[in-house]
Amino acid sequence: MSRLLSKIKAPNDVKKLAANELPELCDEIREEIISTVADNGGHLASNLGVVELTVALHRVFTLPEDCIVWDVGHQSYAHKLLTGREEAFSTLRREDGLSGFPSREESDCDPFTTGHSSASISSALGLSVAKALAGDPGHVIAVIGDGALTGGLAYEGLNNAGRINRNMIVILNDNAMSISRNVGSIARYLSYVRAKPGYLNAKDSVEAALCRVPKVGEHMAAEVRRVKNQIKKNIFNTTIFQDLGFNYYGPFDGHDLRTLTSVLTMARDMDKPVLIHIRTYKGRGYKYAENAPSVYHGLAAFDREKGAGEAIAKGFSHAFGETMCTIAGVNEKLCAVTAAMESGTGLTDFREKYRSRFFDVGIAEEHAVTFCAGLARGGMIPVFAVYSTFLQRAYDQLIHDGALQHLKIILAVDRAGVVGEDGQTHQGVFDAAFLRTVPDIHVYAPTYYDELSDNLDDCIKGENHLYAIRYPRGKELYRPENYTLSGKPFYVFGTEDASATLVTYGRMFSFACEAAETLEKEGIKRRIVKLNRIVPIDPKAVEAVLRCPTVLFFEEGVRQGGIAEEFGAMLLDRNFRGHYEVHAIENGFIKHAPMFRTLHKLGLDVEGMVNAVHTALQIAEKKDGKAVSI
Amino acid sequence: MSRLLSKIKAPNDVKKLAANELPELCDEIREEIISTVADNGGHLASNLGVVELTVALHRVFTLPEDCIVWDVGHQSYAHKLLTGREEAFSTLRREDGLSGFPSREESDCDPFTTGHSSASISSALGLSVAKALAGDPGHVIAVIGDGALTGGLAYEGLNNAGRINRNMIVILNDNAMSISRNVGSIARYLSYVRAKPGYLNAKDSVEAALCRVPKVGEHMAAEVRRVKNQIKKNIFNTTIFQDLGFNYYGPFDGHDLRTLTSVLTMARDMDKPVLIHIRTYKGRGYKYAENAPSVYHGLAAFDREKGAGEAIAKGFSHAFGETMCTIAGVNEKLCAVTAAMESGTGLTDFREKYRSRFFDVGIAEEHAVTFCAGLARGGMIPVFAVYSTFLQRAYDQLIHDGALQHLKIILAVDRAGVVGEDGQTHQGVFDAAFLRTVPDIHVYAPTYYDELSDNLDDCIKGENHLYAIRYPRGKELYRPENYTLSGKPFYVFGTEDASATLVTYGRMFSFACEAAETLEKEGIKRRIVKLNRIVPIDPKAVEAVLRCPTVLFFEEGVRQGGIAEEFGAMLLDRNFRGHYEVHAIENGFIKHAPMFRTLHKLGLDVEGMVNAVHTALQIAEKKDGKAVSI
Repeated sequence: MSRLLSKIKAPNDVKKLAANELPELCDEIREEIISTVADNGGHLASNLGVVELTVALHRVFTLPEDCIVWDVGHQSYAHKLLTGREEAFSTLRREDGLSGFPSREESDCDPFTTGHSSASISSALGLSVAKALAGDPGHVIAVIGDGALTGGLAYEGLNNAGRINRNMIVILNDNAMSISRNVGSIARYLSYVRAKPGYLNAKDSVEAALCRVPKVGEHMAAEVRRVKNQIKKNIFNTTIFQDLGFNYYGPFDGHDLRTLTSVLTMARDMDKPVLIHIRTYKGRGYKYAENAPSVYHGLAAFDREKGAGEAIAKGFSHAFGETMCTIAGVNEKLCAVTAAMESGTGLTDFREKYRSRFFDVGIAEEHAVTFCAGLARGGMIPVFAVYSTFLQRAYDQLIHDGALQHLKIILAVDRAGVVGEDGQTHQGVFDAAFLRTVPDIHVYAPTYYDELSDNLDDCIKGENHLYAIRYPRGKELYRPENYTLSGKPFYVFGTEDASATLVTYGRMFSFACEAAETLEKEGIKRRIVKLNRIVPIDPKAVEAVLRCPTVLFFEEGVRQGGIAEEFGAMLLDRNFRGHYEVHAIENGFIKHAPMFRTLHKLGLDVEGMVNAVHTALQIAEKKDGKAVSI
Repeated sequence: MSRLLSKIKAPNDVKKLAANELPELCDEIREEIISTVADNGGHLASNLGVVELTVALHRVFTLPEDCIVWDVGHQSYAHKLLTGREEAFSTLRREDGLSGFPSREESDCDPFTTGHSSASISSALGLSVAKALAGDPGHVIAVIGDGALTGGLAYEGLNNAGRINRNMIVILNDNAMSISRNVGSIARYLSYVRAKPGYLNAKDSVEAALCRVPKVGEHMAAEVRRVKNQIKKNIFNTTIFQDLGFNYYGPFDGHDLRTLTSVLTMARDMDKPVLIHIRTYKGRGYKYAENAPSVYHGLAAFDREKGAGEAIAKGFSHAFGETMCTIAGVNEKLCAVTAAMESGTGLTDFREKYRSRFFDVGIAEEHAVTFCAGLARGGMIPVFAVYSTFLQRAYDQLIHDGALQHLKIILAVDRAGVVGEDGQTHQGVFDAAFLRTVPDIHVYAPTYYDELSDNLDDCIKGENHLYAIRYPRGKELYRPENYTLSGKPFYVFGTEDASATLVTYGRMFSFACEAAETLEKEGIKRRIVKLNRIVPIDPKAVEAVLRCPTVLFFEEGVRQGGIAEEFGAMLLDRNFRGHYEVHAIENGFIKHAPMFRTLHKLGLDVEGMVNAVHTALQIAEKKDGKAVSI
């Protein structure tokens, strides 16, 4: 291996290369990223966009003394390659392999384990302030995309960071898009800034600012002079970032290593919060990704020579989108809202067909919910389609702006349950538990596409309050032949004299049916209770299992505060005297691995269910004679 | 009653008054607000600041066709007086009386029931868009303070609202402070805007903007001309609000009725989003409040001639603040973070003594948590003191930026439980349930000040993960003589052969002790289990009650997902065969009433507990023979 990349065994090794070797290094990094993502799936376009930035950061700063906080973290692949993780890189997103996001466990060069958007400025500020208090001279850099800048948390961070009297660097990685097109005024504003460099042309203040730049080493002096000249041409007298207290410089070409290195050197040596605005191109260096960066945002394994197919919502997301279009055709009040996940949630067709009733609010889940409340107050029926993990952002809005208004707002909670390779930060395992605390909400958990459509219909026809329909990533699974859509809040399946009852909801029902078939073959009488509506639980569903000696609840969600716990509480309340077991997720931080592999490890698959029933029946047998008596 | 106010029986009646009667009307409104708040407690300074604005809004707009969304809503008293609620106004904040915040149930002139900050722009935008879709010509106005503007949700709203091609009006009610002093760059920016009107003096673009103002009725023409002239003097070429897509006008004197009326008329007739920046003074018209607006933000009843005393944190907040100071004196890593609640959370002394380790981040709970993660990553021990109801805002940050980092972050959750007169939007009844879903968190629920101190000590000495200490509004209550600080996760009190066990935590323990004394006098053997640490529950606490025939859990929080439910699940898991009852809050939206009155109505007081035990013992007796057997 004569590659340059193979010489980089540890953080800061990149400093040992000659400057003229860096373009080749960048090529190698791109090659490594493209081939690994083609094999393993992952985030491609965002990572290809920051190769030069990453190399420049690692040339100018010293890790881990200096800290780089990658917002979201779906652009940290090059950073991983430069911090001692090159050899392990082929395990990216694989079970027990590297995470697709920054991870504190992997490296002390990853200050935070991340995956959600817009948090980097706040965490970087905290770290910077802590360093100041501790007398630690290390620098802290937050790298945030223009898409993440639509999140209110980023603004809260900027508002607080702009006033510190210390070096802190925010790099605005402006690729003129978020995951799909960027929306909102900030996006328009940035395009204005990009298009009209020097529009205010306030040279005097620029000169003054530049005079305050401290001295740098002789070897950098020429470079800094060059950049200063470029700054003079490009700087604006006033931008939002300056108004928020930052020294603003940009926009710069984010693929020009020499410029980036010089600008970062200058930024490093200032005693103020600095915002460096760079222009990058998503997918840079891989023609398919350059031409269709949205397709190559996050994707499954693909053939690198032929490129990936068009990103089309599949499975539940697609079924949801189709139903939305069908209903919108006959109900002109129906609106669709997404927080920068139009394609992922299956709403592309809806946008095309019903543009005036489609709203992409950017990465702003809090706003999405409160905005829905306004739509509902004005007589519309808003459906907010959102990934389970991101809905966590809007918990207060669900209570305060949603439920409290007694208005009809429907949440289409996609990617509910285990999601697979995106790992810890993206598992949709909290929603059932936190939604259940919201007053008056009704939550549905369809197992099949037709149930999802039916649930949506029910919500639209129902009383005015909050609704959620939660469904998993991917496709519907096994469906017994004799299972037909019931439309009822729960469904009982099997004989009344069962020795074991499996209670569950959502896609776990498919596994339960398969498990039941196995148990039947073994001669074990079993019953299944499927909850179609998980909040509130129909008391009759509980009563149906009261006389069963062994009841097992399988839940693809956290145990703490989950549906299984409420089911148990209802059993206890009704003097259930059998054996009740909860098979749910004990700790919501589940690492990346293929989705079904993860479910297997959690015991939430056919095998797990069969084994659980076997064990439970043994326990019940043993217990029978020695139940605690009062 | 020859008062002008008594002529205003319904919305829009204010339009019938002559313009020269309005100053007198404003005086009457102020008088009414001051005397009612002196009697009932409430928000004074904020309401006195918007009297003229409210009158002007009601003169220019027609309600409920046009909608006014008051951000937070703690400035809606004058609005209530002008919308048919003058006669009921003396019942403000009283049981079954008017709410201290906007309420959909009270009036169709209140488009939303609110109480949390920074939501108005988002909900107003939704309403505005819905009106456009429905062909409804009504206007929507959001009134937001400069304090609320530090919340990310407000920015998300601005980012989305700035691009609509429709009239929508945001009024920035700039009183140069939030609840206490405003912080962050936005605050500094606004002070700059206020101090240097015309600093960019771009007359040309102003003229162009004014040319686009549509025609108004003849009777307004002169007024509009006058305002245009004023605008020419004051307008800025570029402000953040213009950058975000708004037509910005201001700052104007928010106490000048003539100017306000003209500006609002002009804003009403534009087809764009408009931001009107007005300067108001909190407490205007009541000298005590003008001099100390923070004291008169929200306060209890007081003597209007003498004024209220200095606002000093009392009870648990004070005890918390004292402990923080004590620990900070010996532990230089301890930091305190607040989201605009320095005084309310008892941190004023801490700020004075340990300024470099005190951080008021503004109304920005999401940022506060993520910022704490950064502080912790940098080696500090951050304590975020926050009201329970506002912590709901940071649910995702607790999971993603907090717990996932395996860092020590301590939440001091103040106002946990029922809060009283602030009502539905401010009850702290969800925290135990939602905190419980956060992986690895430990949650403490002290009953007494010394327990709070002890808990804080424990957290500081403990492992690195998330901690919460939740404590109620007000003072510690009854303490049995023989109760001493144990430092253990739970505490058992009473005889082992008890016929009833009361399980509880937090201040409910005081009531349980009193209830137990009553029961003892009646000859009922009873036991109390007090959970000091409510997450995770110590299994031994459950085992301690396994053989008790009747167990009652009293929880000052929602039943759904609450601690009582987990306790029940643990009982069930251990084959508990007795009778278990949960006395918790069925629906978290609890209306305003005095705190102890609310607790009484919920059955969460001494009387409620005694009655519950009586009833439960009867039930248990009846059940005894006919328990469901398998």
